[in-house]
Amino acid sequence: MKLKVKQLKLSVGKPVAILHTNTAERLQVQEDNRIKLRKYYKEGSKRKWITAVVDVAFSILKENEIALTQDVIKALGIKQGSYVELMTEVHPTSINYVIKKMNGGKLNYTEIYSIISDISKGRLTKAEIAYFTSGCYYSGLDFNEMVNLTKAMVKTGAILKHKNKFVLDLHCAGGVAGNRTSPIVVSLVGSAIEYLKLDAVLPKTASRAITSAAGTSDVMETVSRVEFTVPEIYRILKKTKACLVWNSALKLSPADDRIVKVETLVSLDAEAQIISSILSKKIADGATHVLMDIPYGYGAKFDVTGAIAIKKKFLKMASKFGLKMKVILTEGNKPIGRGIGPVLEMLDVLSVLKHQKNRPRDLEKKSIMLSAELLSLTKNISKSKAISICKLLLYSGRAYKKFKQIVIAQGGKFNFEDLLKKAKFKLKIKTKKTGKVKAINNKKIALVAKIAGCPGDKGSGVYLCKHIGDKVLVGDTLFTIYSESKEKLKYAEKIAKQAFPFIIS
Amino acid sequence: MKLKVKQLKLSVGKPVAILHTNTAERLQVQEDNRIKLRKYYKEGSKRKWITAVVDVAFSILKENEIALTQDVIKALGIKQGSYVELMTEVHPTSINYVIKKMNGGKLNYTEIYSIISDISKGRLTKAEIAYFTSGCYYSGLDFNEMVNLTKAMVKTGAILKHKNKFVLDLHCAGGVAGNRTSPIVVSLVGSAIEYLKLDAVLPKTASRAITSAAGTSDVMETVSRVEFTVPEIYRILKKTKACLVWNSALKLSPADDRIVKVETLVSLDAEAQIISSILSKKIADGATHVLMDIPYGYGAKFDVTGAIAIKKKFLKMASKFGLKMKVILTEGNKPIGRGIGPVLEMLDVLSVLKHQKNRPRDLEKKSIMLSAELLSLTKNISKSKAISICKLLLYSGRAYKKFKQIVIAQGGKFNFEDLLKKAKFKLKIKTKKTGKVKAINNKKIALVAKIAGCPGDKGSGVYLCKHIGDKVLVGDTLFTIYSESKEKLKYAEKIAKQAFPFIIS
Repeated sequence: MKLKVKQLKLSVGKPVAILHTNTAERLQVQEDNRIKLRKYYKEGSKRKWITAVVDVAFSILKENEIALTQDVIKALGIKQGSYVELMTEVHPTSINYVIKKMNGGKLNYTEIYSIISDISKGRLTKAEIAYFTSGCYYSGLDFNEMVNLTKAMVKTGAILKHKNKFVLDLHCAGGVAGNRTSPIVVSLVGSAIEYLKLDAVLPKTASRAITSAAGTSDVMETVSRVEFTVPEIYRILKKTKACLVWNSALKLSPADDRIVKVETLVSLDAEAQIISSILSKKIADGATHVLMDIPYGYGAKFDVTGAIAIKKKFLKMASKFGLKMKVILTEGNKPIGRGIGPVLEMLDVLSVLKHQKNRPRDLEKKSIMLSAELLSLTKNISKSKAISICKLLLYSGRAYKKFKQIVIAQGGKFNFEDLLKKAKFKLKIKTKKTGKVKAINNKKIALVAKIAGCPGDKGSGVYLCKHIGDKVLVGDTLFTIYSESKEKLKYAEKIAKQAFPFIIS
Repeated sequence: MKLKVKQLKLSVGKPVAILHTNTAERLQVQEDNRIKLRKYYKEGSKRKWITAVVDVAFSILKENEIALTQDVIKALGIKQGSYVELMTEVHPTSINYVIKKMNGGKLNYTEIYSIISDISKGRLTKAEIAYFTSGCYYSGLDFNEMVNLTKAMVKTGAILKHKNKFVLDLHCAGGVAGNRTSPIVVSLVGSAIEYLKLDAVLPKTASRAITSAAGTSDVMETVSRVEFTVPEIYRILKKTKACLVWNSALKLSPADDRIVKVETLVSLDAEAQIISSILSKKIADGATHVLMDIPYGYGAKFDVTGAIAIKKKFLKMASKFGLKMKVILTEGNKPIGRGIGPVLEMLDVLSVLKHQKNRPRDLEKKSIMLSAELLSLTKNISKSKAISICKLLLYSGRAYKKFKQIVIAQGGKFNFEDLLKKAKFKLKIKTKKTGKVKAINNKKIALVAKIAGCPGDKGSGVYLCKHIGDKVLVGDTLFTIYSESKEKLKYAEKIAKQAFPFIIS
């Protein structure tokens, strides 16, 4: 097939070719597929084919046109209006294994590796990934398959290597609004490593928001950079012993990132997938000692039975990979802290670290507990001693100092705190009832925050003025919504009133 | 969120906004999702939001940039380098019903309609459609759900209405290479309608290639246009009584087109889906009397048991919609005709219509049989009489005359036959064995034709020089591969030799 070239005046990292929908259909390619192309000569050509990633556009082009980015234009030495010829690549073999899993077959390591490798390289489309995850969801993965999936995910991405005796790490299974313990734990444990002269590092890698209003990386990004290369991480850790960065930028198990993104569309929580997903990141960032926090209860990801079941599987898998892991189940039936949204959560974190009077005590308590658990995992220290040390380091301001050091090492400004800005517009949601706050729904609160602009608009979100157990009188403000736009605020207000996240009685 | 505008110098039908991958991730949108945007003013804005379709590009842009097509640029009255603000739309409700089906729930009409309507409007992404089809595949659809799915598919697309007593139609379930009976049947039955003065039309709508080397529309397109609007179809039928056009262009059950495209990725053949898919098209094109051809056997879509089972379901569904349907099972264990590929198949069709000496007799025989079955469905005529009439009309050249009339009515040139060109390069595949041709594999032949350039390069494909039952000597040519490029030809040769589609013994 021969197509007329349209130049795109865009700088590009990879060669990208945009096709008309109908042309793509005829060539039987879809978005993210690869296609071969080269300059067209009437008399035939011996020139090399170059491979480009296909993007399909809704009527952006005529059917006989192809829009090429500057990379392709330069690589081919071609001009606007001249012609290229195209050749499709045959469907990747891994599709056969996707089909095998969909039909209930067991996959061996080679087959799983082939799928995961193609996913990591962008050779499978999102719809194909959706079919793979459906297959795993319906046909299940046995223990061996889970181990192989985890191995393949690690192997197809970057791997961090540390020389320390203890490489500490923590993970929270998520679903609890405002549960921003990680920046505090990282700072606390980071300062404890120095205080106790432990041969340890804490290279905490975190995600951005998936379904929540803010991910740990979104929150950290309000004060520093979070996207780093592997050598940069080593340099930061040498200075600070601890860091808090975005895992996707490091390309740790990139296949997992793509899978999670697709699963999120339909809130598919395939248990095997969750375990492999989390473990692959921890193995890839070089962890030796890992603390897992699994919140359970009303509005959280798991109920108590589910939490206990997944705990067992995590421990079995971790031991297979030689990871020392502790899993703790925590109450997850309400938001933690007061802010929900990147800046608002960072303000909570800072108020705990600075030991301010109005700091959220629930966030402080949980952060101390997690830090102590993580420290005592090293076996150099008992839990009760760990708790006293954590309290000392937090209350004395050493953890706060460590946090500032990390922020600066990660490219933050010295006056980062002055730069934190809540969103321009705000609105109070008040109660029409007198009584006691019985429940606050995590998912509903997150929804309101997202409509207000989270996580894109850093200063937007929800600030809880009342918490569970508080007495309220008619007209009291339950929470404040922050947004950068009046319209988003209005829409968030509408949803807040419809979905009402508070139960008062 | 605020983004810097990059103008795309492209003409567009719909507003399209291209985002950087990371930006899309932060906004939690994917390709085909919709997003609201408007001109950004520091002091806030009361301007209207416009909705654009999202396209996500691999590093085409910086994260803080958005590339907008001319429609958006004009609608917003905005310039290169200025800023827009963005608002995401909440996930469509239909996602909840997709999740319900994935969890094994039964869907009622409202729920199915909501999914199908969103698919038809492009509001669900391909991955979401993949999850829906997975849900249908694993959880199954009962008879009521199939009826509702078919209804919803019809209702969300265009519907043809005819005033004739008989609106005839035929469908072949596919999978047999070269099985290009439709253009012959359409011409034959079209001429029979006139000959018998039947109050009937035959508005045959066909697809393009899905997994095969050529679809009926691809073949017809070698001699005429196949993309028409509904009023154009009425005008054509008034003149010719029969036509052969591309169903997707007419937007008959467009949701089905999108679903099929996604299922094709993993060759997912959910039976319920196939039945609803085919019936929805027939109902939408206004058919009253439908002939279904289901090929079965080695290399075809169904084995004999599967073919019998699906036949029963077709008949039950058809009667529910008041369609008179006949289902016939035909042998599908080998290619039909000699050419595989758009031009090569059209040459076969013409040689049958022109009653040439070397015409493929299998194609002729099957076309006469199908035409007679379709005619006798009207009950105005017995099958034996129908067969004699078909033979008369074919052998006398009246069917050929009808074909030419249809080609011209569909915008073809008077000298369309002279314009048919086989591909520039060809190569013979010879046998190294003496013996008899025992089998020819449909899928392997189609694969070779596709690698040679089908269906994109109209003149490319495979021409069978030997057929089942033929005796061959070492060195005899089994088939010829045609391609527009020497490299594709070489690659097709390699695959032809590896996968060898012939069994000789």
